[in-house]
Amino acid sequence: MRLILAIVMVTSALAEEGKWTPAQLLRFPAPELRRMGLHVPASKLWDARRGTGLLSAAISTVGCSGGLVSPDGLFVTNHHCLFSIVEEHSSPGRDLITNGFIARSREEELKGRASRLRVMRRFTDVTEAVRAAAPADAGDLARTKAIEAKQKQLVAECEKNAETRCLVAVFEGGLQYVLVEALEFTDVRLVYAPPRAIGEFGGEDDNYRWPRHTGDFAIGRVYRDGKPYKPETFFPMSRQGLKDGDFVMVLGYPGITFRSMTAAEMDYVRERFALSIDVLGELIRRVEETSKGSAEGTIAMAPAVKRYANLHTRARGQVAGLRRSGTLESRAKADDAVMQWAAGKLDYTKSAEAKRELDRLVAERRATLARDYLLGLKPPTALSHALTLVRLATERAKPESERLAEYLPRNVPTLRNQFVREQKSFFRPSDEAMFSCWAERVRALQGRERVAAMDRMPAVRELYEQTKVTDAGEAQKMFEESVQQLRARRDPLLEFAFALDVDLRAMEDEERRYNGALARLRPEWRKAVIAQAGRPVAPDANGTLRVSLAHVQGMVPQDGMVYRPFTTLAGMLEKHTGQEPFAMPPFLLEKARAVDAAKVPLNFLADGDTSGGSSGSPVLNGRGELVGLNFDRPWESVAGDFGFSGPYSRNINVDIRFLLWLLEVQGADAILRELGGPVRF
Amino acid sequence: MRLILAIVMVTSALAEEGKWTPAQLLRFPAPELRRMGLHVPASKLWDARRGTGLLSAAISTVGCSGGLVSPDGLFVTNHHCLFSIVEEHSSPGRDLITNGFIARSREEELKGRASRLRVMRRFTDVTEAVRAAAPADAGDLARTKAIEAKQKQLVAECEKNAETRCLVAVFEGGLQYVLVEALEFTDVRLVYAPPRAIGEFGGEDDNYRWPRHTGDFAIGRVYRDGKPYKPETFFPMSRQGLKDGDFVMVLGYPGITFRSMTAAEMDYVRERFALSIDVLGELIRRVEETSKGSAEGTIAMAPAVKRYANLHTRARGQVAGLRRSGTLESRAKADDAVMQWAAGKLDYTKSAEAKRELDRLVAERRATLARDYLLGLKPPTALSHALTLVRLATERAKPESERLAEYLPRNVPTLRNQFVREQKSFFRPSDEAMFSCWAERVRALQGRERVAAMDRMPAVRELYEQTKVTDAGEAQKMFEESVQQLRARRDPLLEFAFALDVDLRAMEDEERRYNGALARLRPEWRKAVIAQAGRPVAPDANGTLRVSLAHVQGMVPQDGMVYRPFTTLAGMLEKHTGQEPFAMPPFLLEKARAVDAAKVPLNFLADGDTSGGSSGSPVLNGRGELVGLNFDRPWESVAGDFGFSGPYSRNINVDIRFLLWLLEVQGADAILRELGGPVRF
Repeated sequence: MRLILAIVMVTSALAEEGKWTPAQLLRFPAPELRRMGLHVPASKLWDARRGTGLLSAAISTVGCSGGLVSPDGLFVTNHHCLFSIVEEHSSPGRDLITNGFIARSREEELKGRASRLRVMRRFTDVTEAVRAAAPADAGDLARTKAIEAKQKQLVAECEKNAETRCLVAVFEGGLQYVLVEALEFTDVRLVYAPPRAIGEFGGEDDNYRWPRHTGDFAIGRVYRDGKPYKPETFFPMSRQGLKDGDFVMVLGYPGITFRSMTAAEMDYVRERFALSIDVLGELIRRVEETSKGSAEGTIAMAPAVKRYANLHTRARGQVAGLRRSGTLESRAKADDAVMQWAAGKLDYTKSAEAKRELDRLVAERRATLARDYLLGLKPPTALSHALTLVRLATERAKPESERLAEYLPRNVPTLRNQFVREQKSFFRPSDEAMFSCWAERVRALQGRERVAAMDRMPAVRELYEQTKVTDAGEAQKMFEESVQQLRARRDPLLEFAFALDVDLRAMEDEERRYNGALARLRPEWRKAVIAQAGRPVAPDANGTLRVSLAHVQGMVPQDGMVYRPFTTLAGMLEKHTGQEPFAMPPFLLEKARAVDAAKVPLNFLADGDTSGGSSGSPVLNGRGELVGLNFDRPWESVAGDFGFSGPYSRNINVDIRFLLWLLEVQGADAILRELGGPVRF
Repeated sequence: MRLILAIVMVTSALAEEGKWTPAQLLRFPAPELRRMGLHVPASKLWDARRGTGLLSAAISTVGCSGGLVSPDGLFVTNHHCLFSIVEEHSSPGRDLITNGFIARSREEELKGRASRLRVMRRFTDVTEAVRAAAPADAGDLARTKAIEAKQKQLVAECEKNAETRCLVAVFEGGLQYVLVEALEFTDVRLVYAPPRAIGEFGGEDDNYRWPRHTGDFAIGRVYRDGKPYKPETFFPMSRQGLKDGDFVMVLGYPGITFRSMTAAEMDYVRERFALSIDVLGELIRRVEETSKGSAEGTIAMAPAVKRYANLHTRARGQVAGLRRSGTLESRAKADDAVMQWAAGKLDYTKSAEAKRELDRLVAERRATLARDYLLGLKPPTALSHALTLVRLATERAKPESERLAEYLPRNVPTLRNQFVREQKSFFRPSDEAMFSCWAERVRALQGRERVAAMDRMPAVRELYEQTKVTDAGEAQKMFEESVQQLRARRDPLLEFAFALDVDLRAMEDEERRYNGALARLRPEWRKAVIAQAGRPVAPDANGTLRVSLAHVQGMVPQDGMVYRPFTTLAGMLEKHTGQEPFAMPPFLLEKARAVDAAKVPLNFLADGDTSGGSSGSPVLNGRGELVGLNFDRPWESVAGDFGFSGPYSRNINVDIRFLLWLLEVQGADAILRELGGPVRF
């Protein structure tokens, strides 16, 4: 472990912690980056004016990240990120899920109905414009509304350019607003997917676990005007491999972290996670009880159980990790240090006030934590659809400028797709059980948390027996109906949804008022935190392109145990039981037994700073070559969302050489040629 | 890992593998032992004539091992090995289980009602006598009976000496018979036990797991004629500690291993373990279902669930370990090599025949594997008691020389103690559910496996409702009754037990016939195996004193993960959640937070060759000083019962310095003084 410790000490001085924005990355001193192991000149990383450079090959696929890897628009991402296309094209006679998929020619590539892929073009600071839109003396609710309106306007202007999708990203709670401009492609085709037994090897058992042996990758191709897209930049693939301590760089679109919060705010989030452990645990139990023994139910509810189990594991990891890492305690100390530093400094008097106000507000929010969590939870399908129908009808009655963004005409197709997808996996016994579980908890709320709609809610059984919302045909009709038409149906579930929507809107207004206060307070406080740090501070993840500078390294997850940074095909063989999720496909099993499996690299561990959304992030070596794809974090690392931890923060990557090796084993010659040919160990 | 590999290579040449008998140990070349790290001259280890030497301080406590550690009869063993005394003296007002126990003076020491402790005195080869008792031309059933009779006679003669307990141990399936003579003490008193939260820290969650943080030790004192026993030898305690790679020696009484079996026989045992995974899994489920929600049921069934869970985990470890280690495959190859070697050698023609016969016989036994397993399983309490009553009455009617050993008058008190103990934890809903589960499976048996008694078995519910066996008072009366009296009761459960006893006796006769064949065949085969090996071969464990020569070392349990050989109090703090089984007692928590916990040693890993029965085995360093107590194996190691594995066979020990440290923290000054005073890190 001596080597590992040495590395931590050398690099922690600068940039090991944090998901850096491209602009921040370019401001790091070049010698410092070289010393860490990055040998690509800054000029090749990102040209802010032209929107090109190595970083532009790191693409976003809505919820996932990926990397362009050929001059003809091939890209790689995680298996689970392209899984919807695999599913879409699977049928009883053509089981792509089980068998995987190889396009032998461009004609065979499979288009995804709802796929989207974005290539970043420009980041423009719009802080002044947004700030100007919200007058300093506006109330908190008005402030949120003004900011939202301004954002909507900036996005609308930006999207006038063809193929362009824009968003306004908020950094440091409003210290900076950035207009992000991306080229969006809707013609995305599947080129290669491994059998699920490889792409999901280990399944839920290995999820959030190291050691890992998962080939979590897939290949797609982006098309523009029916022809393969020709990117200006793509990642060459490294065939050299990695060794312990090597520099790596993770490029991607991490979704959300909580690091800019005060200790009191973090503690609130921790408590929310703790509550979610309880609620999700009960939901999983109820779904399993009600679907057990029914093939239909088991299949229909599998994705929900998987999603809940995933959230449950992650929440447990957050709570346990916080306890272990002591992040809250160290954040409280750091907060105090900033307060002392700010004391008497004229520029920062408002910062100290802001901090006190943030803590006061979050203390207030604790009083409605259970309600906010339960009403914020995605409801079971029947209620979720009823609420969507009610919202859609209500919003449709408003002028577009006043509508909630999700219900704008351009977003309605997405809404409808999701609706149809969810209808297919509706399984009434489990849905009803989840509803009951939710309703029992919501009905028990008292005082400020009381939810008025619950007083008039009929029995759950009655709701499910009488509603037409769960009838796919009727629901499609409802999708077009006005408030009056929906009301006229006298559907008890729709009636309940209308009542609940009132409570929801009241809660959402509270939330927007709170957000308005945050938009006012957080920047003041963070200004002081950053100034006191006296060094670059990486902003919280917000779904925008970030770069994490990292090193290949194992970890000590607990006293007496070490995680080594590499796994190989030999470990996959060790885990192989023949039973899902540990069943290697026969061709792979045979091949693995014929070669020296310990020489075939599979997964590796690094201290990359990742979070949800980092799935599929390209991982580059110091020469800017692709060495792997990020796809998970160990359970011991997930509390990194609250603060990077040298000993515990690690990300799990699949070695890109395993993909190249597998393509050769499977005889995917054309793809392999396009990626530069096979790899030798 | 380089260091570890080096050690394996150097020592595997000789004596790393195997549980050596004292006689074998003394025959190892002294330079070889010294090179391994043992610096105690052979003359100090064991004086076969006088029955003294270092090995004589390794005592047996019936099911566990232990070590004498003071001139006044103090001994150390595992917490779980003295737990019955702790339990016996606990009451609602005096919770020794939770609080632990410290005898502040000799008067306070607590006598155990059923405790037994044995010190070895003599090992006498009685092979000739036993062989002579069984004529070569006897049938297999007659052979078993003749051998059993001879053993009984030898034991009876030997036990004519006061305080002496004897047994005839079988080595290599009958290649050697040894009369083991021990001094037995019945006055055993508890001197010190830690709170259960230390002695069982980690509970079932950590059972068979590394990393481990359990203070699994307790201290007792042996008395003779009311005065502390003065042993000729006891182990001094080392205060120097260990480092990675250090030589250690494990002394104890391992119970059973399967290494002298042929590959086909091992495969049979493997299949039996596989079946047991299924059956035990179902039993655990049924017990949990039926006791859930009932405080009485949960408490009553906790020991059964624990025992089943333990067996279940171990069986899974055996099956998984066999798959991973490839022991069956390497045994098959080794068998073949012996067959080839024996071919044409006149002395070993019978060996090859014996091997073929062993394989043929075990193939035959596969046909009744399910029956043999299910009828061999300890039944639920009601049936178990009914069977015991039936057997006892039936055996009592025979002359003593023909009775089964368990039912001899001298063993009846043990039987009755067990009976009473089990009655206390009888919980009908779970007992009935277990019975149903067992009965369903037994009733489904067909053909040669058919169990006739099942045809006339009434409904389970009826059995439980009408029987008086589950009435503690009535059952006590039945304990004294004859066959006629029991029959006269017309108790349906007793009736069923009488019927089942016929099936059981038939099966037991089959088993004895099989054992008679094994007694004839195994020695022939093992003679060849040992001769072909051309080096000492350690016999299978059989409950007699053995010595394992080992080294402190970690392991690679799976690709991508390393177990380090040492854990510390810091790891206990890491695991502490405040919830059982991870709740450190407040005094320890406070102390651990006040010291540098990473400096306080807790558990260590070595490649000691252990098995069930090795619990509490003293672990010595190369100077013959006590450094620890063996108490478990990692899950990855349990398949070592089939064959030692350099990479996977490890034993888990508690560092004796943790005991000394804890005694000081708890202020157990007198005990600490008797053990030579405190330890400093």
